[in-house]
Amino acid sequence: MSRSINLAVIPGDGIGQEVVAQGLKVLNAVLPQDVKLETKEYDLGAQRWHRTGETLPDAELEALKGHDAILLGAIGDPSVPSGVLERGLLLKLRFAFDHFINLRPSKLFPNTATPLAGRPDIDFVVVREGTEGPYTGNGGSLRTGTPAEVATEVSVNTAYGVERVVRDAFERANARPRKKLTLVHKNNVLVYAGHMWKNIFDKVATEYPEVTTDYLHVDAATIFFVTQPERFDVIVTDNLFGDILTDLAAAVTGGIGLAASGNINPTDTFPSMFEPVHGSAPDIAGQGKADPTATVLSVALLLRHLGYEAEAVRIEDAVSADLAERDGATSRTTDQIGDALAVRVAD
Amino acid sequence: MSRSINLAVIPGDGIGQEVVAQGLKVLNAVLPQDVKLETKEYDLGAQRWHRTGETLPDAELEALKGHDAILLGAIGDPSVPSGVLERGLLLKLRFAFDHFINLRPSKLFPNTATPLAGRPDIDFVVVREGTEGPYTGNGGSLRTGTPAEVATEVSVNTAYGVERVVRDAFERANARPRKKLTLVHKNNVLVYAGHMWKNIFDKVATEYPEVTTDYLHVDAATIFFVTQPERFDVIVTDNLFGDILTDLAAAVTGGIGLAASGNINPTDTFPSMFEPVHGSAPDIAGQGKADPTATVLSVALLLRHLGYEAEAVRIEDAVSADLAERDGATSRTTDQIGDALAVRVAD
Ligand SMILES: CC(C)[C@H](C(=O)O)[C@@H](O)C(=O)O
Ligand SMILES: CC(C)[C@H](C(=O)O)[C@@H](O)C(=O)O
Repeated sequence: MSRSINLAVIPGDGIGQEVVAQGLKVLNAVLPQDVKLETKEYDLGAQRWHRTGETLPDAELEALKGHDAILLGAIGDPSVPSGVLERGLLLKLRFAFDHFINLRPSKLFPNTATPLAGRPDIDFVVVREGTEGPYTGNGGSLRTGTPAEVATEVSVNTAYGVERVVRDAFERANARPRKKLTLVHKNNVLVYAGHMWKNIFDKVATEYPEVTTDYLHVDAATIFFVTQPERFDVIVTDNLFGDILTDLAAAVTGGIGLAASGNINPTDTFPSMFEPVHGSAPDIAGQGKADPTATVLSVALLLRHLGYEAEAVRIEDAVSADLAERDGATSRTTDQIGDALAVRVAD
Repeated sequence: MSRSINLAVIPGDGIGQEVVAQGLKVLNAVLPQDVKLETKEYDLGAQRWHRTGETLPDAELEALKGHDAILLGAIGDPSVPSGVLERGLLLKLRFAFDHFINLRPSKLFPNTATPLAGRPDIDFVVVREGTEGPYTGNGGSLRTGTPAEVATEVSVNTAYGVERVVRDAFERANARPRKKLTLVHKNNVLVYAGHMWKNIFDKVATEYPEVTTDYLHVDAATIFFVTQPERFDVIVTDNLFGDILTDLAAAVTGGIGLAASGNINPTDTFPSMFEPVHGSAPDIAGQGKADPTATVLSVALLLRHLGYEAEAVRIEDAVSADLAERDGATSRTTDQIGDALAVRVAD
């Protein structure tokens, strides 16, 4: 295991700056003395775009390749046309670095608020495909802006891309106590992509006889997310369905302030990237109101990916303990939550 | 207003037969004496397909055109490959009859179970586009079944198709007390279709100064469905997002057993079609366990569409009253619920 971490930091927009600062604080506190942490901050996002018109220049993309991992805050600002930063920066990174595993664990921690009555026992992980589907940017528009406009979006899916994410999900399911994997798609309508997903899923399943498998259409899956979320263990799904389902998952497990994610390239050809599921939340930016917990939990995923399992668990335990002691009445600042978590992991 | 109704009935698969019978029972009970109701049943669905290989022959499609409206139960059976009946029958009808308004009201009736804590006040309607988007069947697969397979799904969107559904949604919003319309899409990723939707939405909005407008990405919308569903009044969205959101809406408003829908062609060039949002539920088919309420509420939408507003309201009031008196302990059969509703509307 390497005893140094060369980390790229992209705070990005809105609350990104604030939450990333807390993530780094906790990272510093949890790392053993002998691990050398180097960080380099990249100035990317809305401000950069306004200043220079650039989203992610080639030189910076090149430089980012040299890091062991990337910690990202949030991308997106209302002052920038929708899609410019998302496609030109966030998705560009996910695609350029072939982050085909978009890993999003969902757990209802004790003492956290859920909109669901009865506080079901939720503990599942969504393995969202990260490099294909409707996210490829394939499509176009003809006679744009006229009454005769036609706009298309092409979901591109390859056996290569589907099989690798499905295999990863089976591995993860096999390593968990319940060993259950649910494929979510919409193969009664999207028959070309949907049947390919299902066929590959069924084929790989034969290699994992201990894993119980299930298939749900995406619309039905949303029902179970609110009526029976305890039925899920590992879910594997397409890029867009994964996007939708993981926001819903975050909502039922105490909110987007707690949802962590990793954009992972398991082959380590390129650095993996870790980020909270939430966005830049411009309405509360700069006010110390953002909950940095999702970023801190993303740091745990980052550490696990780099082989620091004990440290990842320490962070997760600290978050658990911190949440257990939160009371609805007292509200802490972003900084105070970061401090509290840093103290806990250092213990 | 025509004083006769020439209704096509497609019971379809699974519980379709059972729930449609109750829908017709209530329809018969609510209609004034002088309205002549003629019904013709069409044998379409899984059994027909097994027997003849046909999903929807041209002759029957032609015959269906002659009706004032269609009442449909449910389509789909595990014995038929996924997609065959959905694409070959259900979606074929929606597309052939240009059902561009897929209308799906969501209301949390008093005394019905919701998985949400705190029983928020939910009363919104989703206007789902019904003839475009990823549902067009546009796409294909290359080198099918090999490791080199590529499968595509093309979402096709036209200004013509988007503008007409957006206009319909503004009209509906304008006619409701709260006058609020939310566009749901994913225009930060699906930039071609998403921007076209947003531009058309903004353009039409200028003609409805009294309607408050809002835009949400589909992932964020799922969060609000469970944390703040009372914020919605009318929602307009694409075919696939509408599919997903309306199942979630059904789940939070007491379940898919209560969710009604209308596939409407407001130009009346072709008959509109009314169906419960739920599927064929083969696991409980034939056991008298299915709740026919969603079908009965779909009959109300059918009556409203044909100009029988008072009768539609009578059905909705009957359902409200019936639900208010349901108690969790006693479970009634499909038939008993139908009887109870028929008695109420006849009063
Ligand atoms: C910001 C957006 C492009 C992104 C996505 O759609 O993947 C976000 O919603 C997410 O889930 O990480
Ligand atoms: C059965 C299926 C094709 C259909 C759809 O996706 O539209 C259903 O889910 C619905 O919502 O009516």
